[in-house]
Amino acid sequence: MFDVAIIGKGPAGISAAVNAFARNKSVVIFGGDSKKVLLSPSIPNYPGLPEISGKDLMERLNEHLKLTNATIINKTVIAVYAMGNYFSIQAENDFYEAKSVILATGVDFKKSIENEDTFLGNGVSYCATCDAPLYKGKVVAVVGYNHESVEEANFLAEVCQRVYFIPMFKGNFKLKENVEIINDSPIKFEGSLKAEKLILKNNAIEADGFFVLKDSLPLTSLVPGLEVDGPHVLVDKRMETNIKGLFAAGDITGKPYQVAKAIGEGQIAALNAAEYLDQKK
Amino acid sequence: MFDVAIIGKGPAGISAAVNAFARNKSVVIFGGDSKKVLLSPSIPNYPGLPEISGKDLMERLNEHLKLTNATIINKTVIAVYAMGNYFSIQAENDFYEAKSVILATGVDFKKSIENEDTFLGNGVSYCATCDAPLYKGKVVAVVGYNHESVEEANFLAEVCQRVYFIPMFKGNFKLKENVEIINDSPIKFEGSLKAEKLILKNNAIEADGFFVLKDSLPLTSLVPGLEVDGPHVLVDKRMETNIKGLFAAGDITGKPYQVAKAIGEGQIAALNAAEYLDQKK
Ligand SMILES: Cc1cc2nc3c(=O)[nH]c(=O)nc-3n(C[C@H](O)[C@H](O)[C@H](O)COP(=O)(O)OP(=O)(O)OC[C@H]3O[C@@H](n4cnc5c(N)ncnc54)[C@H](O)[C@@H]3O)c2cc1C
Ligand SMILES: Cc1cc2nc3c(=O)[nH]c(=O)nc-3n(C[C@H](O)[C@H](O)[C@H](O)COP(=O)(O)OP(=O)(O)OC[C@H]3O[C@@H](n4cnc5c(N)ncnc54)[C@H](O)[C@@H]3O)c2cc1C
Repeated sequence: MFDVAIIGKGPAGISAAVNAFARNKSVVIFGGDSKKVLLSPSIPNYPGLPEISGKDLMERLNEHLKLTNATIINKTVIAVYAMGNYFSIQAENDFYEAKSVILATGVDFKKSIENEDTFLGNGVSYCATCDAPLYKGKVVAVVGYNHESVEEANFLAEVCQRVYFIPMFKGNFKLKENVEIINDSPIKFEGSLKAEKLILKNNAIEADGFFVLKDSLPLTSLVPGLEVDGPHVLVDKRMETNIKGLFAAGDITGKPYQVAKAIGEGQIAALNAAEYLDQKK
Repeated sequence: MFDVAIIGKGPAGISAAVNAFARNKSVVIFGGDSKKVLLSPSIPNYPGLPEISGKDLMERLNEHLKLTNATIINKTVIAVYAMGNYFSIQAENDFYEAKSVILATGVDFKKSIENEDTFLGNGVSYCATCDAPLYKGKVVAVVGYNHESVEEANFLAEVCQRVYFIPMFKGNFKLKENVEIINDSPIKFEGSLKAEKLILKNNAIEADGFFVLKDSLPLTSLVPGLEVDGPHVLVDKRMETNIKGLFAAGDITGKPYQVAKAIGEGQIAALNAAEYLDQKK
């Protein structure tokens, strides 16, 4: 059981890890490097590191993270469950436990597909690794928002009979034989008890299962019971959410979307998580 | 008239300057280097600069500040007056104007001397440069909390007949002939219409004027009308105080007292000050 689990390895998450470690807490951090940081050509306004490139900043943050005790797990977290006195965290196929959690997943403005939430768990899945076994020998469709989704479509193709791949970005995709690319825009899911059909702008696909693969999951499916305001999590001054022991930091708590704010809030969240743990003892 | 005036040149103030500049605002920043930062032997938890010494961090922050357009004025701000549509800032003997202000003065836990606030402006002064002329040829007493107060006692000795110097810190003081050191602790001011006597633990001093020289002035005398909560300024999520156009950031807004929080809040304050200015246009 970790003291602090951090979801997201951007500026907010790494600041939280550095500061939880400074308070002698055991830390696990989930996710890969922040694409937003990596994409920034030059960051002029992180005090002390003028005009640093996003790539160099990410490297410096990772170097700092290495000086801590944090266990780094490069997996997407599918769900965080509040279990009363601790949290259970599902990262793809694996489960982890922690006494407190800090959400630092950034913001994502991709709209959900209509009925995506309604059918989640009933024919719609956010995790290929987790749910592939359910669709052995069957037909699935993948709506892919990130580059990793190409690999996941190929992985599904090893298990499933046929895979439709609907990429939401441009690229030259190396796909297995039984993967068919559909260049179209998803509109909504239809079905009776479970999702059976994905209506596209110019077409419709029937399948046994549908995978929606993106970097950030809708907050309310990521953390059942979380109080949100649109794309943001509601927090108090201590960066605590409506769920005791669950904190949030960075872009996810609201504007301005900036590195220094994310780093400051990661610190506040971690120090208050540490205080929360010390008081629980 | 500056767009943004920043009071305090610690992490919060410098972050505010860097970020106001990033938004193309003209900036003036008041004060000297943060003694708290300079005193930190090693700061393990400012992400991206692991285990940096306070001295090195201060140097890096100053280097970053130099890349901005900020006018740096190494003076103590005595008062900030909200004039309706702009602010008037008294820095020792000089006055400056700005459309918005960011308070980043840190926290100071030195208790005021009893009646210090009652007699402020009536025999009690926070500024030797400003008020020395009032006491030409007279007798004054200086309660000195910082090293600069030694110079100020000597400066007063050039103008006044006699100066009592009550140092609140240890040191070997080089003082003019007409300065007398009193090693004692101030308890309270007494007087009828103005301060006439300073009661010490073991003694009492009569003088025409009393100077209390410290790094941070009591918030309510620094900014008349400011809403405070003990040693902290009350701010909303946007770091704005109860006075429109007046923001605050860093230790002054509350715990945790830490560099990353101060830098994050300096950014939030500056970006919201910029937004405030843009909307006013
Ligand atoms: C092109 C560009 C330029 C920019 N320029 C600047 C600039 O000059 N100055 C500045 O201050 N800011 C700039 N920004 C903004 C800055 O990058 C963000 O404000 C900052 O990265 C926010 O940090 P964060 O940690 O909150 O979120 P992010 O950096 O978005 O990190 C969140 C991480 O969590 C991951 N994640 C999400 N969900 C999960 C999950 N379920 N499981 C595991 N991991 C998950 C995400 O994939 C991501 O890696 C820029 C952004 C872009 C895109
Ligand atoms: C020994 C020590 C070790 C520390 N170690 C760490 C650490 O490891 N990690 C960490 O994150 N933090 C640490 N801190 C805390 C950190 O230094 C503070 O949180 C940080 O400096 C706060 O920044 P600030 O800009 O809000 O205030 P400050 O750094 O206090 O800066 C405010 C500045 O404003 C000036 N000022 C005040 N009033 C006026 C006025 N009227 N006119 C003009 N100027 C004015 C002050 O003199 C000061 O220079 C440490 C502090 C100390 C003392």
